[in-house]
Amino acid sequence: MTGLVLLVGAGPGDPGLITLRGLRALESADVIVADRLGARGVLDGLAAEGVQLKAEIVDVGKLPGHHAVPQDAINALLVQLAEQGKTVVRLKGGDPYIFGRGGEELAHCRERGIDVRVVSGVTSAISVPAIAGIPLTHRGLATAFTVVTGHDQIQELGGGRDHTVVLLMGVGTLAHAAMTLGRGERGASCPVAIIEDGFGDGQRVTVGTLETIAHQAAARGVRSPAVVVVGDVVRLSPYAPAELASHRSALGKDTAL
Amino acid sequence: MTGLVLLVGAGPGDPGLITLRGLRALESADVIVADRLGARGVLDGLAAEGVQLKAEIVDVGKLPGHHAVPQDAINALLVQLAEQGKTVVRLKGGDPYIFGRGGEELAHCRERGIDVRVVSGVTSAISVPAIAGIPLTHRGLATAFTVVTGHDQIQELGGGRDHTVVLLMGVGTLAHAAMTLGRGERGASCPVAIIEDGFGDGQRVTVGTLETIAHQAAARGVRSPAVVVVGDVVRLSPYAPAELASHRSALGKDTAL
Ligand SMILES: C[S@@+](CC[C@H](N)C(=O)[O-])C[C@H]1O[C@@H](n2cnc3c(N)ncnc32)[C@H](O)[C@@H]1O
Ligand SMILES: C[S@@+](CC[C@H](N)C(=O)[O-])C[C@H]1O[C@@H](n2cnc3c(N)ncnc32)[C@H](O)[C@@H]1O
Repeated sequence: MTGLVLLVGAGPGDPGLITLRGLRALESADVIVADRLGARGVLDGLAAEGVQLKAEIVDVGKLPGHHAVPQDAINALLVQLAEQGKTVVRLKGGDPYIFGRGGEELAHCRERGIDVRVVSGVTSAISVPAIAGIPLTHRGLATAFTVVTGHDQIQELGGGRDHTVVLLMGVGTLAHAAMTLGRGERGASCPVAIIEDGFGDGQRVTVGTLETIAHQAAARGVRSPAVVVVGDVVRLSPYAPAELASHRSALGKDTAL
Repeated sequence: MTGLVLLVGAGPGDPGLITLRGLRALESADVIVADRLGARGVLDGLAAEGVQLKAEIVDVGKLPGHHAVPQDAINALLVQLAEQGKTVVRLKGGDPYIFGRGGEELAHCRERGIDVRVVSGVTSAISVPAIAGIPLTHRGLATAFTVVTGHDQIQELGGGRDHTVVLLMGVGTLAHAAMTLGRGERGASCPVAIIEDGFGDGQRVTVGTLETIAHQAAARGVRSPAVVVVGDVVRLSPYAPAELASHRSALGKDTAL
């Protein structure tokens, strides 16, 4: 009997932000194949809250100083475990279908006749800005948002400050991305926020403009993982300095539960 | 003693897709102020699973043939209940910060000195395409995605078929949006999927191209709520007809758990 692969979104790393179905999938699993970002944090957090899982945990995430397990090896592992008749949870940070290679893992398993299901999750692209008090859309400030990685398609992103841009995996290419976006309609004075290690011990918010942000990030030693948000919605953040803040933001800083 | 307002994302309407923290918030609430879309479905689904909530439920969603409670009245109600010392959950479909006016509700309460927290949720923009087998990003097919409503900013959306566009609230303006997008770099033959009533009894998927989709939608009587996805990732859907499908999609149709 062939097993089952469940592609589960762990959310941004806070154990409270996994879904009920995601938790049930973890409880039913024989093996959990986990990424480091988000996924490991959630497993550790659930364990700390007393949730006991029977599953064996295989960590395929990148450890400092080590290489991540290559995607081909992860794909092969999922198939191999399922062919042993196991219920396998592939636990991925955020949502499995947002820059997570979830679609590839699904296709690979399915082509080999393995039953695969997807359990959507809370993406970091939305929830990490939220803890800094930044909604990606807001009446009068933003009516669209685009999510993109630091290395792609920044060139062709049209729209003004009312079209929010979210960069994932964007720390390394920040200077280039900010310069490119600043040359467009948004202009160099467009507000930017960087939220590092959202929901983690290293959570930190840096707010500036497309002109200043690369310098600020370098000065503060901003590191990955981080979400970068570009647009007028950044003004709503209680972390925005007075000269950038909208009148609406003179509020306490704790907006996430 | 002033109460507390918790802005909670219910997810797309399936009770399994609310977060653990969201469920705990519902359990702690004295009053739940719920939208119809997503939120009511989740409350009914949780009740059917035997979850008992002590809270009084106030339905502020649009009922067929009725007007929705105006936003000002909702804002005022949240403040009034919190000032009575109550723990109020404002339960919103999907994620509270994605076209949900969550930012406005937060700002309104905070300006009146009420403590407000946000609990992010699974947005329909990502999870509804997922049940049709469509990841918004996919290596080789899409490296960015934009979420926008049917009435805004379609004009200025650049990018090609590898830049996925998701339309929320897009049924009424579909013909116009499809024509506008088809004139751009994506071209009229760009694949489109409409997913109606995701996770609900009326769930249905329609796949076509920017040229054909408005006609198909009219012929099938496509209705709101629906998520529209535009771009090459639609080819991955098992609902894509053979002439649009990528080689990767000759797979079963059930991809959501
Ligand atoms: C490979 S992508 C995966 C995204 C994931 N699938 C999601 O939906 O959140 C990893 C990137 O997500 C962002 N990210 C994920 N979790 C984060 C967190 N807790 N804090 C800050 N950034 C995070 C960072 O930009 C990181 O480089
Ligand atoms: C006012 S917007 C709110 C979006 C919500 N905040 C979110 O993050 O999903 C409502 C729109 O979301 C989409 N939507 C929400 N739930 C849906 C579902 N279960 N199936 C299809 N579309 C849905 C539809 O486009 C609908 O018109």
